Amino acid sequence: MKKTIITISREFGSGGRTVGKKLAEILGIDYYDKEIIEKVHDDTGFTKEFIEEQGEYSPTKNFFSYAFIGRDTNGISMNDYVWNAQRKVIIDVADKGPCVIVGRCADYILRNRSDVLNVFIRGDMETKAKRIVELYGETDDNPKKRLKDKDKKRAINYKYYTDREWGACQNYDLSINTSAVGIDGAVEIILDMLKRCEEQKD
Amino acid sequence: MKKTIITISREFGSGGRTVGKKLAEILGIDYYDKEIIEKVHDDTGFTKEFIEEQGEYSPTKNFFSYAFIGRDTNGISMNDYVWNAQRKVIIDVADKGPCVIVGRCADYILRNRSDVLNVFIRGDMETKAKRIVELYGETDDNPKKRLKDKDKKRAINYKYYTDREWGACQNYDLSINTSAVGIDGAVEIILDMLKRCEEQKD
Repeated sequence: MKKTIITISREFGSGGRTVGKKLAEILGIDYYDKEIIEKVHDDTGFTKEFIEEQGEYSPTKNFFSYAFIGRDTNGISMNDYVWNAQRKVIIDVADKGPCVIVGRCADYILRNRSDVLNVFIRGDMETKAKRIVELYGETDDNPKKRLKDKDKKRAINYKYYTDREWGACQNYDLSINTSAVGIDGAVEIILDMLKRCEEQKD
Repeated sequence: MKKTIITISREFGSGGRTVGKKLAEILGIDYYDKEIIEKVHDDTGFTKEFIEEQGEYSPTKNFFSYAFIGRDTNGISMNDYVWNAQRKVIIDVADKGPCVIVGRCADYILRNRSDVLNVFIRGDMETKAKRIVELYGETDDNPKKRLKDKDKKRAINYKYYTDREWGACQNYDLSINTSAVGIDGAVEIILDMLKRCEEQKD
Protein backbone atom coordinates (compact mmCIF):
# COMPACT_ATOMS: atom_id res chain seq x y z
CA MET A 1 0.00 0.00 0.00
CA LYS A 2 1.20 3.47 -0.87
CA LYS A 3 2.50 5.48 2.10
CA THR A 4 2.30 9.24 1.70
CA ILE A 5 2.97 10.42 5.25
CA ILE A 6 6.33 9.65 6.83
CA THR A 7 6.95 10.08 10.55
CA ILE A 8 10.56 10.24 11.70
CA SER A 9 11.41 9.45 15.31
CA ARG A 10 15.07 9.86 16.09
CA GLU A 11 17.76 9.59 18.70
CA PHE A 12 19.40 12.89 19.58
CA GLY A 13 22.48 13.37 17.38
CA SER A 14 21.57 10.63 14.89
CA GLY A 15 20.84 13.06 12.04
CA GLY A 16 17.16 12.08 11.90
CA ARG A 17 16.03 15.67 11.35
CA THR A 18 18.37 16.04 8.34
CA VAL A 19 17.15 12.70 6.99
CA GLY A 20 13.56 13.97 7.20
CA LYS A 21 14.37 17.29 5.55
CA LYS A 22 16.23 15.69 2.63
CA LEU A 23 13.48 13.13 2.17
CA ALA A 24 10.78 15.83 1.98
CA GLU A 25 12.88 17.79 -0.54
CA ILE A 26 13.38 14.77 -2.81
CA LEU A 27 9.71 13.77 -2.60
CA GLY A 28 8.58 17.40 -3.02
CA ILE A 29 6.25 17.21 0.00
CA ASP A 30 5.74 19.31 3.14
CA TYR A 31 8.14 19.03 6.04
CA TYR A 32 7.05 19.58 9.64
CA ASP A 33 9.39 19.99 12.55
CA LYS A 34 9.74 23.51 13.96
CA GLU A 35 6.67 24.35 11.83
CA ILE A 36 4.59 22.39 14.34
CA ILE A 37 5.91 24.59 17.14
CA GLU A 38 4.82 27.70 15.18
CA LYS A 39 1.33 26.32 14.77
CA VAL A 40 1.01 25.30 18.43
CA HIS A 41 2.25 28.77 19.38
CA ASP A 42 -0.46 30.35 17.21
CA ASP A 43 -3.12 28.08 18.75
CA THR A 44 -2.14 28.36 22.40
CA GLY A 45 -0.04 31.48 22.92
CA PHE A 46 2.65 29.49 24.77
CA THR A 47 6.19 30.66 23.91
CA LYS A 48 8.00 28.72 21.20
CA GLU A 49 10.84 27.78 23.57
CA PHE A 50 8.34 26.35 26.06
CA ILE A 51 6.53 24.35 23.37
CA GLU A 52 9.77 23.03 21.92
CA GLU A 53 10.88 21.77 25.32
CA GLN A 54 7.55 20.52 26.69
CA GLY A 55 6.29 19.06 23.42
CA GLU A 56 8.94 16.35 23.24
CA TYR A 57 10.76 16.17 26.54
CA SER A 58 9.84 15.19 30.03
CA PRO A 59 10.82 17.97 32.45
CA THR A 60 12.26 15.28 34.71
CA LYS A 61 14.25 12.10 34.22
CA ASN A 62 11.92 10.24 36.56
CA PHE A 63 8.78 8.80 34.96
CA PHE A 64 6.71 8.81 38.15
CA SER A 65 7.44 12.37 39.21
CA TYR A 66 6.38 13.45 35.69
CA ALA A 67 2.85 12.37 36.51
CA PHE A 68 2.55 14.88 39.37
CA ILE A 69 4.27 18.00 38.04
CA GLY A 70 2.39 21.32 37.78
CA ARG A 71 -1.22 20.12 37.52
CA ASP A 72 -4.07 22.63 37.67
CA THR A 73 -7.27 22.03 39.68
CA ASN A 74 -8.57 19.76 36.91
CA GLY A 75 -5.42 17.65 37.10
CA ILE A 76 -4.21 18.96 33.74
CA SER A 77 -0.60 20.03 33.43
CA MET A 78 0.98 22.56 31.06
CA ASN A 79 2.49 19.56 29.27
CA ASP A 80 -0.99 18.15 28.73
CA TYR A 81 -2.11 21.42 27.14
CA VAL A 82 0.90 21.40 24.82
CA TRP A 83 0.31 17.69 24.05
CA ASN A 84 -3.33 18.28 23.11
CA ALA A 85 -2.59 21.31 20.92
CA GLN A 86 0.32 19.50 19.26
CA ARG A 87 -1.79 16.40 18.69
CA LYS A 88 -4.46 18.45 16.87
CA VAL A 89 -1.84 20.17 14.70
CA ILE A 90 -0.33 16.80 13.71
CA ILE A 91 -3.74 15.34 12.82
CA ASP A 92 -4.52 18.48 10.75
CA VAL A 93 -1.27 18.51 8.77
CA ALA A 94 -1.63 14.78 8.03
CA ASP A 95 -5.17 15.43 6.75
CA LYS A 96 -3.82 18.15 4.45
CA GLY A 97 -1.76 15.68 2.42
CA PRO A 98 1.65 14.03 1.88
CA CYS A 99 4.32 15.18 4.35
CA VAL A 100 7.24 14.29 6.60
CA ILE A 101 6.71 14.86 10.34
CA VAL A 102 9.68 14.75 12.71
CA GLY A 103 9.26 13.67 16.35
CA ARG A 104 6.45 14.59 18.75
CA CYS A 105 4.89 11.10 18.98
CA ALA A 106 3.46 11.49 15.45
CA ASP A 107 3.81 7.71 14.89
CA TYR A 108 1.43 7.14 17.79
CA ILE A 109 -0.93 10.03 17.04
CA LEU A 110 -1.43 8.82 13.45
CA ARG A 111 -1.49 5.09 14.34
CA ASN A 112 -4.93 4.47 12.87
CA ARG A 113 -4.05 5.72 9.37
CA SER A 114 -2.88 3.10 6.88
CA ASP A 115 -1.00 5.58 4.65
CA VAL A 116 1.72 6.31 7.22
CA LEU A 117 5.28 4.95 7.21
CA ASN A 118 6.87 5.11 10.66
CA VAL A 119 10.67 5.40 10.67
CA PHE A 120 13.15 5.40 13.56
CA ILE A 121 16.62 6.86 13.01
CA ARG A 122 19.42 5.88 15.38
CA GLY A 123 23.19 5.98 15.55
CA ASP A 124 26.16 4.59 17.43
CA MET A 125 27.26 6.52 20.49
CA GLU A 126 30.63 7.61 19.07
CA THR A 127 29.20 9.04 15.82
CA LYS A 128 26.40 10.83 17.65
CA ALA A 129 28.76 12.34 20.23
CA LYS A 130 31.00 13.69 17.47
CA ARG A 131 27.99 15.06 15.61
CA ILE A 132 26.45 17.00 18.52
CA VAL A 133 29.77 18.63 19.41
CA GLU A 134 30.14 19.74 15.77
CA LEU A 135 26.54 20.98 15.57
CA TYR A 136 25.82 22.37 19.02
CA GLY A 137 29.31 23.01 20.43
CA GLU A 138 30.93 21.95 23.68
CA THR A 139 29.21 22.31 27.06
CA ASP A 140 30.10 21.38 30.63
CA ASP A 141 28.38 18.02 30.25
CA ASN A 142 30.28 15.45 28.20
CA PRO A 143 28.53 14.66 24.89
CA LYS A 144 27.60 11.08 25.82
CA LYS A 145 25.85 12.28 28.97
CA ARG A 146 23.97 14.92 26.93
CA LEU A 147 22.87 12.26 24.46
CA LYS A 148 21.66 9.92 27.18
CA ASP A 149 19.81 12.64 29.10
CA LYS A 150 18.05 14.00 26.03
CA ASP A 151 16.92 10.57 24.82
CA LYS A 152 15.83 9.59 28.32
CA LYS A 153 13.59 12.68 28.51
CA ARG A 154 12.17 11.88 25.06
CA ALA A 155 11.51 8.29 26.11
CA ILE A 156 9.66 9.36 29.27
CA ASN A 157 7.52 11.88 27.37
CA TYR A 158 6.68 9.21 24.78
CA LYS A 159 5.88 6.56 27.38
CA TYR A 160 3.73 8.98 29.37
CA TYR A 161 1.51 10.00 26.46
CA THR A 162 1.46 6.79 24.42
CA ASP A 163 2.00 3.97 26.96
CA ARG A 164 4.49 2.51 24.49
CA GLU A 165 8.26 2.14 24.58
CA TRP A 166 10.18 4.78 22.64
CA GLY A 167 12.66 3.12 20.26
CA ALA A 168 11.00 -0.32 20.29
CA CYS A 169 11.09 -1.84 16.77
CA GLN A 170 7.44 -2.83 17.23
CA ASN A 171 6.36 0.81 16.77
CA TYR A 172 8.13 1.43 13.46
CA ASP A 173 8.05 0.05 9.92
CA LEU A 174 11.71 0.77 9.42
CA SER A 175 14.63 1.58 11.69
CA ILE A 176 18.07 2.56 10.37
CA ASN A 177 21.49 3.10 11.93
CA THR A 178 22.96 6.20 10.28
CA SER A 179 26.43 5.35 11.66
CA ALA A 180 26.46 2.36 9.28
CA VAL A 181 25.08 4.02 6.12
CA GLY A 182 25.30 7.81 6.61
CA ILE A 183 22.51 10.37 6.28
CA ASP A 184 22.21 10.03 2.49
CA GLY A 185 22.25 6.24 2.71
CA ALA A 186 19.36 6.36 5.19
CA VAL A 187 17.37 8.66 2.89
CA GLU A 188 17.88 6.26 -0.04
CA ILE A 189 16.79 3.25 2.04
CA ILE A 190 13.58 5.03 3.08
CA LEU A 191 12.88 5.88 -0.60
CA ASP A 192 13.48 2.20 -1.44
CA MET A 193 11.08 1.14 1.35
CA LEU A 194 8.38 3.57 0.09
CA LYS A 195 8.66 2.12 -3.42
CA ARG A 196 8.36 -1.44 -2.10
CA CYS A 197 5.38 -0.57 0.12
CA GLU A 198 3.59 0.75 -2.96
CA GLU A 199 4.35 -2.46 -4.88
CA GLN A 200 3.14 -4.65 -2.01
CA LYS A 201 -0.37 -6.10 -2.28
CA ASP A 202 -2.46 -5.83 0.88
CA MET B 1 32.41 -0.56 5.97
CA LYS B 2 31.67 -3.90 4.35
CA LYS B 3 29.43 -6.21 6.42
CA THR B 4 29.85 -9.90 5.69
CA ILE B 5 27.97 -11.46 8.61
CA ILE B 6 24.26 -10.81 8.97
CA THR B 7 22.36 -11.65 12.14
CA ILE B 8 18.59 -11.85 11.91
CA SER B 9 16.50 -11.47 15.04
CA ARG B 10 12.80 -11.89 14.41
CA GLU B 11 9.35 -11.87 15.89
CA PHE B 12 7.57 -15.20 15.75
CA GLY B 13 5.48 -15.35 12.56
CA SER B 14 7.18 -12.37 10.89
CA GLY B 15 8.92 -14.49 8.24
CA GLY B 16 12.39 -13.56 9.52
CA ARG B 17 13.72 -17.08 9.01
CA THR B 18 12.62 -17.07 5.35
CA VAL B 19 14.16 -13.63 4.89
CA GLY B 20 17.48 -14.98 6.24
CA LYS B 21 17.37 -18.08 4.04
CA LYS B 22 16.64 -16.12 0.85
CA LEU B 23 19.32 -13.58 1.70
CA ALA B 24 21.97 -16.29 2.19
CA GLU B 25 20.94 -17.92 -1.11
CA ILE B 26 21.22 -14.65 -3.06
CA LEU B 27 24.55 -13.77 -1.46
CA GLY B 28 25.83 -17.35 -1.85
CA ILE B 29 26.92 -17.54 1.81
CA ASP B 30 26.34 -20.00 4.66
CA TYR B 31 23.04 -19.99 6.53
CA TYR B 32 22.81 -20.99 10.20
CA ASP B 33 19.58 -21.67 12.00
CA LYS B 34 18.82 -25.32 12.79
CA GLU B 35 22.45 -25.97 11.82
CA ILE B 36 23.48 -24.36 15.12
CA ILE B 37 21.29 -26.83 16.99
CA GLU B 38 23.06 -29.73 15.22
CA LYS B 39 26.45 -28.39 16.25
CA VAL B 40 25.42 -27.80 19.87
CA HIS B 41 23.98 -31.33 19.89
CA ASP B 42 27.32 -32.71 18.67
CA ASP B 43 29.21 -30.71 21.30
CA THR B 44 27.00 -31.36 24.32
CA GLY B 45 24.92 -34.47 23.70
CA PHE B 46 21.70 -32.66 24.68
CA THR B 47 18.74 -33.63 22.49
CA LYS B 48 17.97 -31.35 19.55
CA GLU B 49 14.46 -30.65 20.85
CA PHE B 50 15.87 -29.55 24.20
CA ILE B 51 18.48 -27.29 22.57
CA GLU B 52 15.95 -25.75 20.23
CA GLU B 53 13.68 -24.86 23.12
CA GLN B 54 16.27 -23.84 25.72
CA GLY B 55 18.57 -22.05 23.30
CA GLU B 56 16.11 -19.28 22.50
CA TYR B 57 13.21 -19.43 24.91
CA SER B 58 12.81 -18.87 28.60
CA PRO B 59 11.09 -21.92 30.15
CA THR B 60 8.86 -19.45 32.04
CA LYS B 61 7.11 -16.20 31.24
CA ASN B 62 8.42 -14.67 34.47
CA PHE B 63 11.90 -13.14 34.28
CA PHE B 64 12.69 -13.57 37.96
CA SER B 65 11.72 -17.21 38.29
CA TYR B 66 13.98 -17.90 35.28
CA ALA B 67 16.97 -17.01 37.43
CA PHE B 68 16.26 -19.84 39.89
CA ILE B 69 15.20 -22.74 37.68
CA GLY B 70 17.13 -26.02 37.72
CA ARG B 71 20.56 -24.87 38.92
CA ASP B 72 23.22 -27.46 39.79
CA THR B 73 25.46 -27.20 42.85
CA ASN B 74 27.64 -24.65 41.04
CA GLY B 75 24.60 -22.48 40.33
CA ILE B 76 24.70 -23.36 36.63
CA SER B 77 21.45 -24.32 34.94
CA MET B 78 20.87 -26.51 31.89
CA ASN B 79 20.05 -23.29 30.04
CA ASP B 80 23.47 -21.90 30.93
CA TYR B 81 25.13 -25.00 29.48
CA VAL B 82 23.15 -24.64 26.26
CA TRP B 83 23.90 -20.89 26.17
CA ASN B 84 27.66 -21.44 26.54
CA ALA B 85 27.80 -24.18 23.91
CA GLN B 86 25.65 -22.15 21.53
CA ARG B 87 27.77 -19.04 22.09
CA LYS B 88 30.93 -20.93 21.14
CA VAL B 89 29.30 -22.33 17.99
CA ILE B 90 28.18 -18.83 16.92
CA ILE B 91 31.67 -17.36 17.47
CA ASP B 92 33.17 -20.25 15.49
CA VAL B 93 30.85 -19.98 12.49
CA ALA B 94 31.38 -16.21 12.33
CA ASP B 95 35.15 -16.79 12.35
CA LYS B 96 34.77 -19.21 9.44
CA GLY B 97 33.52 -16.48 7.07
CA PRO B 98 30.50 -14.70 5.56
CA CYS B 99 27.15 -16.06 6.76
CA VAL B 100 23.60 -15.38 7.90
CA ILE B 101 22.77 -16.38 11.50
CA VAL B 102 19.15 -16.49 12.64
CA GLY B 103 18.21 -15.83 16.29
CA ARG B 104 20.01 -17.06 19.41
CA CYS B 105 21.31 -13.66 20.58
CA ALA B 106 23.91 -13.67 17.77
CA ASP B 107 23.70 -9.86 17.55
CA TYR B 108 24.88 -9.66 21.17
CA ILE B 109 27.41 -12.50 20.98
CA LEU B 110 29.13 -10.89 17.97
CA ARG B 111 28.77 -7.30 19.23
CA ASN B 112 32.52 -6.57 19.17
CA ARG B 113 32.96 -7.41 15.47
CA SER B 114 32.71 -4.49 13.04
CA ASP B 115 31.79 -6.67 10.02
CA VAL B 116 28.34 -7.64 11.34
CA LEU B 117 24.99 -6.20 10.21
CA ASN B 118 22.28 -6.73 12.83
CA VAL B 119 18.74 -6.94 11.45
CA PHE B 120 15.40 -7.21 13.25
CA ILE B 121 12.38 -8.52 11.34
CA ARG B 122 8.91 -7.76 12.65
CA GLY B 123 5.33 -7.81 11.44
CA ASP B 124 1.86 -6.57 12.27
CA MET B 125 -0.22 -8.83 14.51
CA GLU B 126 -2.83 -9.67 11.85
CA THR B 127 -0.31 -10.75 9.20
CA LYS B 128 1.69 -12.80 11.69
CA ALA B 129 -1.42 -14.52 13.08
CA LYS B 130 -2.50 -15.51 9.55
CA ARG B 131 1.02 -16.73 8.77
CA ILE B 132 1.45 -19.01 11.79
CA VAL B 133 -1.93 -20.65 11.27
CA GLU B 134 -0.98 -21.37 7.62
CA LEU B 135 2.48 -22.64 8.58
CA TYR B 136 1.95 -24.43 11.88
CA GLY B 137 -1.80 -25.13 11.87
CA GLU B 138 -4.48 -24.40 14.43
CA THR B 139 -4.08 -25.18 18.13
CA ASP B 140 -6.20 -24.65 21.23
CA ASP B 141 -4.53 -21.30 21.86
CA ASN B 142 -5.63 -18.50 19.59
CA PRO B 143 -2.83 -17.36 17.22
CA LYS B 144 -2.35 -13.93 18.81
CA LYS B 145 -1.83 -15.51 22.22
CA ARG B 146 0.71 -17.95 20.72
CA LEU B 147 2.58 -15.05 19.11
CA LYS B 148 2.69 -13.05 22.32
CA ASP B 149 3.77 -16.02 24.47
CA LYS B 150 6.54 -17.07 22.10
CA ASP B 151 7.96 -13.54 21.76
CA LYS B 152 7.72 -12.99 25.51
CA LYS B 153 9.79 -16.13 26.14
CA ARG B 154 12.34 -14.98 23.54
CA ALA B 155 12.51 -11.53 25.15
CA ILE B 156 13.14 -13.02 28.62
CA ASN B 157 15.86 -15.33 27.33
CA TYR B 158 17.52 -12.40 25.52
CA LYS B 159 17.29 -10.09 28.54
CA TYR B 160 18.63 -12.77 30.87
CA TYR B 161 21.76 -13.51 28.86
CA THR B 162 22.47 -10.08 27.33
CA ASP B 163 21.00 -7.56 29.81
CA ARG B 164 19.50 -5.77 26.79
CA GLU B 165 15.95 -5.33 25.57
CA TRP B 166 14.91 -7.68 22.78
CA GLY B 167 13.41 -5.72 19.88
CA ALA B 168 14.89 -2.34 20.90
CA CYS B 169 16.03 -0.43 17.77
CA GLN B 170 19.25 0.43 19.61
CA ASN B 171 20.50 -3.16 19.17
CA TYR B 172 20.04 -3.36 15.40
CA ASP B 173 21.35 -1.57 12.30
CA LEU B 174 18.12 -2.18 10.45
CA SER B 175 14.59 -3.18 11.41
CA ILE B 176 11.89 -3.93 8.85
CA ASN B 177 8.15 -4.57 9.01
CA THR B 178 7.42 -7.43 6.61
CA SER B 179 3.69 -6.66 6.75
CA ALA B 180 4.43 -3.43 4.85
CA VAL B 181 6.89 -4.75 2.24
CA GLY B 182 6.58 -8.55 2.21
CA ILE B 183 9.37 -11.12 2.59
CA ASP B 184 10.99 -10.36 -0.77
CA GLY B 185 10.78 -6.62 -0.15
CA ALA B 186 12.61 -7.08 3.17
CA VAL B 187 15.34 -9.15 1.46
CA GLU B 188 15.86 -6.41 -1.15
CA ILE B 189 16.07 -3.68 1.50
CA ILE B 190 18.74 -5.64 3.41
CA LEU B 191 20.72 -6.08 0.17
CA ASP B 192 20.37 -2.32 -0.42
CA MET B 193 21.61 -1.64 3.13
CA LEU B 194 24.62 -3.96 2.67
CA LYS B 195 25.57 -2.13 -0.52
CA ARG B 196 25.30 1.26 1.20
CA CYS B 197 27.33 0.09 4.23
CA GLU B 198 30.11 -0.92 1.86
CA GLU B 199 30.03 2.50 0.17
CA GLN B 200 30.08 4.34 3.52
CA LYS B 201 33.45 5.73 4.66
CA ASP B 202 34.27 5.08 8.31
